[in-house]
Amino acid sequence: MLTQDKQQRNWKPIVKQFEAVVGKNGVVQRREELITYECDGLTSYRERPAVVVLPRTTEQVAEVVKICDRHSIPFIARGSGTGLSGGALPVENCVLIVTSLMRQILKVDLENQQVIVQPGVINSWVTQTVSGAGFYYAPDPSSQIICSIGGNVAENSGGVHCLKYGVTTNHVLGLKLVLPDGSIVDVGGQIPEMPGYDLTGLFVGSEGTLGIATEITLRILKTAESICVLLADFTSIEAAGVSVSDIISAGIIPGGMEIMDNLSINAVEDVVATNCYPRDSGGILLVEIDGLAVEVAANKQRIAEICQKNGARNITIASDPEQRLRLWKGRKAAFAAAGHVSPDYYVQDGVIPRTQLPYVLEQIEALSQKSGYRIANVFHAGDGNLHPLILYDNSIPGELEKVEEVGGEILKLCVKVGGSISGEHGIGADKKCYMPEMFTATDLETMQWVRQVFNPKGLANPGKIFPTPRTCGEAANATGEIAKKFEGVEKF
Amino acid sequence: MLTQDKQQRNWKPIVKQFEAVVGKNGVVQRREELITYECDGLTSYRERPAVVVLPRTTEQVAEVVKICDRHSIPFIARGSGTGLSGGALPVENCVLIVTSLMRQILKVDLENQQVIVQPGVINSWVTQTVSGAGFYYAPDPSSQIICSIGGNVAENSGGVHCLKYGVTTNHVLGLKLVLPDGSIVDVGGQIPEMPGYDLTGLFVGSEGTLGIATEITLRILKTAESICVLLADFTSIEAAGVSVSDIISAGIIPGGMEIMDNLSINAVEDVVATNCYPRDSGGILLVEIDGLAVEVAANKQRIAEICQKNGARNITIASDPEQRLRLWKGRKAAFAAAGHVSPDYYVQDGVIPRTQLPYVLEQIEALSQKSGYRIANVFHAGDGNLHPLILYDNSIPGELEKVEEVGGEILKLCVKVGGSISGEHGIGADKKCYMPEMFTATDLETMQWVRQVFNPKGLANPGKIFPTPRTCGEAANATGEIAKKFEGVEKF
Repeated sequence: MLTQDKQQRNWKPIVKQFEAVVGKNGVVQRREELITYECDGLTSYRERPAVVVLPRTTEQVAEVVKICDRHSIPFIARGSGTGLSGGALPVENCVLIVTSLMRQILKVDLENQQVIVQPGVINSWVTQTVSGAGFYYAPDPSSQIICSIGGNVAENSGGVHCLKYGVTTNHVLGLKLVLPDGSIVDVGGQIPEMPGYDLTGLFVGSEGTLGIATEITLRILKTAESICVLLADFTSIEAAGVSVSDIISAGIIPGGMEIMDNLSINAVEDVVATNCYPRDSGGILLVEIDGLAVEVAANKQRIAEICQKNGARNITIASDPEQRLRLWKGRKAAFAAAGHVSPDYYVQDGVIPRTQLPYVLEQIEALSQKSGYRIANVFHAGDGNLHPLILYDNSIPGELEKVEEVGGEILKLCVKVGGSISGEHGIGADKKCYMPEMFTATDLETMQWVRQVFNPKGLANPGKIFPTPRTCGEAANATGEIAKKFEGVEKF
Repeated sequence: MLTQDKQQRNWKPIVKQFEAVVGKNGVVQRREELITYECDGLTSYRERPAVVVLPRTTEQVAEVVKICDRHSIPFIARGSGTGLSGGALPVENCVLIVTSLMRQILKVDLENQQVIVQPGVINSWVTQTVSGAGFYYAPDPSSQIICSIGGNVAENSGGVHCLKYGVTTNHVLGLKLVLPDGSIVDVGGQIPEMPGYDLTGLFVGSEGTLGIATEITLRILKTAESICVLLADFTSIEAAGVSVSDIISAGIIPGGMEIMDNLSINAVEDVVATNCYPRDSGGILLVEIDGLAVEVAANKQRIAEICQKNGARNITIASDPEQRLRLWKGRKAAFAAAGHVSPDYYVQDGVIPRTQLPYVLEQIEALSQKSGYRIANVFHAGDGNLHPLILYDNSIPGELEKVEEVGGEILKLCVKVGGSISGEHGIGADKKCYMPEMFTATDLETMQWVRQVFNPKGLANPGKIFPTPRTCGEAANATGEIAKKFEGVEKF
């Protein structure tokens, strides 16, 4: 239905309706201004939205969504546009609802350790707001100084500290939602476990396909009494991997554990020159240890011993904030550095059981040899979350497709060893075709039922997560089985 | 529809079908044997099921559910029947699917810290199975030596250790489910964060209204290097409450923090004679501290200082297992003891923000004075989860109704201060009428949409969670609004 309508749509009266809600300043429709919004962090897919709308309040979001619903216009929510799986990728003739004017911190409740924010609030602002009082917000994606909490909620973002503290879903207590028909609903609340169905958990990670979060209640944590960072330098990346398993097996859960391979080390040393990461290292392991001072001191000792036992050539430990930042600097710059040493890079995001790390790294190396692409490995080793960076040159026609294929092989490898096709970047437009690698048709259908309930017209972020051919349009999502499921529903 | 059919149903051919699936031994239908199944731990509601079926495998559960679906028979899953909100309460002419023959531990994977169990496996068996290897399963309801993991999943059970480690939902990685139409679906998996919608999280706590879990993948944790229990004795329960807030504010998260008031203390001393809890105490605080030995030693010291500052008369600390058990003994026996000092007791389960503890305890005392019922307070103080025990005599006609009213007042009080009507016992049949105190009509409707998708005929555990008059039958759950929502669905 949509495919027929959309070419002939007269946007003028619709834009007028948007302007009535958000003002003229809140609507972007000039072609050259729309270019910014053609893609998110996954730059290999592009599509220009018809209109961008920038609401400021829940009510404005609801009104905008109602207009879309009334006119059957697909709409896509976008935060800062830093997502790496194309979750905020527009579709043809869609409305992009951008939350960058929704940046108010609505409530800070230190006593109950929670903060209520609008979705456009930047991740790092939350910690900045409460750090003076000794608190912080745990999920810390690499993009934390620019990515939005709304986007984090949509993609269930992770970060370095998620090994110990869990990903976004573990830190969202409640949500105010605008559903795809424009109705406003509250899910969850101010206490961790609410009765009834856990719709908060359902919504987090649903990538905009169930509605738009307009107020988010976040849990904040007490800043640890003591933090230290340990850098261990190994002659092989496998030895770094074994150390990670040994640390966890010893019952220690550090704040974070990151591994970088030789290629990544040299890339960051070329670009940001930390002078901490030895260029001849086979792999470095960065461990952040937090807790009581006595606990940190004890764990630091135990971790150092484990690394030494596994052949670490050198161990550096930093406790003061400046020294710690210095050790982290290279890791934080790893993606950007890859962009400097290669014209382009394709970042993959997969998860494997920790114990499979040596095998998987070996297989990735074999893939690199076979395909001829250099692959840099940077990863959240503690939770088995890999981020292989495939280096290539996008100006050579056909290269992207080949690289995507290599990326796909890595994902299949992750699934084969019992892992997942996404750790923290989401499925978005990029990985939906790999969903059947992980889920049976019935499993996927079950998710689709849920989607159909919240989003029956398929207008909220169409073409994401679920592996339907993009060309088939959203209506095709409802397979015969789903239609059958819904047949009886009207009777109630 | 159901209300007309059910009186005339000819059970004989249906029972034959059940017998074909589970064998004659797997079907219970003699009136006197069915009495056991009339209620769960909430004994004030009773209803005899028509038939009890005891399957042994996922496939058998699926076949039994398919028979129910085919004949439009309401079915209710039941584990050990220890639930306290009537979640496993039968409805008239229903089939009770009891999982007590599904008690296999299917897989123990220490390397990846997970265990796969059938739903009838008893909670404490999981820890018993893995404790030799230095692991344990964290959620520990008071009933842990008898309650089933399937029931824990349905009710999202908590326990003493949930302050630090979270409730059941934080420890379930994946589920094999039999949906209400008999189809078998896998949700979640072996790694903590799977892509797609978090249906595992949605299912945990859905109280049997979305289907039956037949295989449950649980996360197990490393046993702490050191554990100690601290008992502080205060002249007032308020001082114990303030100490709890102060401990959390100091950034310490103990394994558990429990408070018992004078009435509870005397009840347990009468019954189990721990000789640890002073009979003249205004309130005792029990704190379990776990972690590295150095960490436990440091926190023990800090917690003792906080308690002393708040006027603790005496502090006892136990580190060896026997001594620890002795300090816990009274707390573990608190409910049973209430049953000994009063002919009957009604246990309430509500949550409040920790900071409201002194105010709420004062209000509960006022309610006790006003109503004339003694109320014993035993609670998971760290997470603000109250368990007031209202003591009464059920043999006096009309008393239960009055006590339920007092219980209802306590729930309203919890909601008023920003808390919840259930912490860990679920809503079940008991509390559904209080759901509108916490949720708006739209919020509840959103949950109902989800229920309708999984359970369109309303056969899976009807009459639970949602506040519809029981007499209206399940069809009435679909309000005009919901019907409207589903109108368009068929078109897809």
